[in-house]
Amino acid sequence: MKVGASATGPHTARIGPKTKIRCRDVGEDELLGEVLRRLVPGKAVAIGPGDDCAVVEMQDHGKLLALKTDCVVEGVHFFRGTNALDVGWKAMMRPLSDFAATSAVPQFALITLIVPEKTEVTWMKELYRGLRRAANRFEVSIVGGETSSTPGPIAISTSVVGFVERSRAVSRRGGKAGDDLFVTGRLGGALSQKHLEFVPRIVESRWLTDNFSIHAMMDLSDGLGTDLPRLARASKLGFKIDTEKLPLSRGANSDAAISEGEDYELLFAISPRERDRLEHAWRKKFPKLPLTRIGRLNPKSEIRNPKLPGGYVHFQQPR
Amino acid sequence: MKVGASATGPHTARIGPKTKIRCRDVGEDELLGEVLRRLVPGKAVAIGPGDDCAVVEMQDHGKLLALKTDCVVEGVHFFRGTNALDVGWKAMMRPLSDFAATSAVPQFALITLIVPEKTEVTWMKELYRGLRRAANRFEVSIVGGETSSTPGPIAISTSVVGFVERSRAVSRRGGKAGDDLFVTGRLGGALSQKHLEFVPRIVESRWLTDNFSIHAMMDLSDGLGTDLPRLARASKLGFKIDTEKLPLSRGANSDAAISEGEDYELLFAISPRERDRLEHAWRKKFPKLPLTRIGRLNPKSEIRNPKLPGGYVHFQQPR
Repeated sequence: MKVGASATGPHTARIGPKTKIRCRDVGEDELLGEVLRRLVPGKAVAIGPGDDCAVVEMQDHGKLLALKTDCVVEGVHFFRGTNALDVGWKAMMRPLSDFAATSAVPQFALITLIVPEKTEVTWMKELYRGLRRAANRFEVSIVGGETSSTPGPIAISTSVVGFVERSRAVSRRGGKAGDDLFVTGRLGGALSQKHLEFVPRIVESRWLTDNFSIHAMMDLSDGLGTDLPRLARASKLGFKIDTEKLPLSRGANSDAAISEGEDYELLFAISPRERDRLEHAWRKKFPKLPLTRIGRLNPKSEIRNPKLPGGYVHFQQPR
Repeated sequence: MKVGASATGPHTARIGPKTKIRCRDVGEDELLGEVLRRLVPGKAVAIGPGDDCAVVEMQDHGKLLALKTDCVVEGVHFFRGTNALDVGWKAMMRPLSDFAATSAVPQFALITLIVPEKTEVTWMKELYRGLRRAANRFEVSIVGGETSSTPGPIAISTSVVGFVERSRAVSRRGGKAGDDLFVTGRLGGALSQKHLEFVPRIVESRWLTDNFSIHAMMDLSDGLGTDLPRLARASKLGFKIDTEKLPLSRGANSDAAISEGEDYELLFAISPRERDRLEHAWRKKFPKLPLTRIGRLNPKSEIRNPKLPGGYVHFQQPR
């Protein structure tokens, strides 16, 4: 529907509760204006949304810059009809989970919205409400974005920039032979609802690197069966896990815990010398969140990796 | 075609010149490995592509951080069948053009590729070759990315981070009443080929802010008719332009120069006191690139804006 063609005129058409206003009716500037007006730029933002580039102040000189981009695509990461608020939450929290994996602090986000012209403006507003709500949870400022029409499904790409202290940046590469492997939380069963509501383990990750030497870490997005081999490979090691020890979500079995993905829990490697102190301090600090030792990193030659059923890998045929 | 089903076996299938390998045949890790292997991480990159976050060193403490995200979508920004190398070039150069608009120096890029499973791997490699070639032109490091499958058209989202000196960051907001309005290069006719081959005016923009006080600036992506009103609005001013003075591309008329978009030239506002020095110095520094004074910024109340036919606006119905 074109707004100008509405029987009640463009203005009432816009506020009428029953009339669906679609993106093509309002134009990019007005649409961006609508959603950007609700963003409160932080003190560090010199040039905010609506200009060519966002320009921000890095307050923590001497720290390293952390960068991550990620996307959610309709039909791949969420189903058509999913609550837009949930989609926005997930679109922001996925890259923030990578910040948890790196033990970095997210500060600024950029949003690229690729949406069909027929998308309703209320959907877009709800989406942005989800994005804002998720960003606010970790004091992240949404400083810019871009919108494009598309003949295809909705896609939302979120890029996040922040910082990490040189001594606390954790990659997947630093695992050492003999390291214990731990996971936070519970695995499996995330596809029913958790994948839309998860809270990235940023607080937990920052606490870990503040108190322990974490050798390697990642977040479990594609499932332990895919992600653990990635960490081991990056560290040039093998691994051994005890599948009976996996912390299972209610109703999930160990196959689900290994293969389903979308857990957004942390997997990390740490010296076994830290085991007792870690387990004790964790229980005190995060009494409601399980921390489970699921196995260890081994020299590649020592033990063959157990055959894990793979998790979700984009583009791969089912095996 | 599934690689495993190939009569000649997976290995020869992959190197055979006639066999089309599609993304679904190789899986995300291998695909990312293919394209990331060719990226040479800069010295500033502490954790590069393939890990959770990229982690980089900001070498210019005390400067501001500049951030921009942009995207190109098949069927919107390029036609199906466009040379993948050109698509990659454009996907990188569009956000870099916003860096030119801000007079910022781009340093790090993140790429989100949203591609159907049936996309050929050679297409993806060519795309990345275009992205790399464009990034190299301005010494930008591609430090990370994400890949997702999609049931829809190809979309590439590029996010770029860099820096700008506090005194040189130019927004759209700083125009003053009476300022001259200049554009670089020639306008119109970009849709035939230039939109795939343009070079963002970063060198020119950096030279401008090194030598002059530029009050407001933007890049012309949606056409002068859409973009100039945006700059005027951001500066809370009106404008007057002389459409007969517009620098036209060969074969383009002033309607095309105003409405077509995709010029990626700079539009900027500068005090008329600088006019002579600017025009003289520009001719000496950039003898091959026209710089044209097209009009001026006016107090809104003084003169009504000439009615400009609008340029390309996403989501807007044709008028």
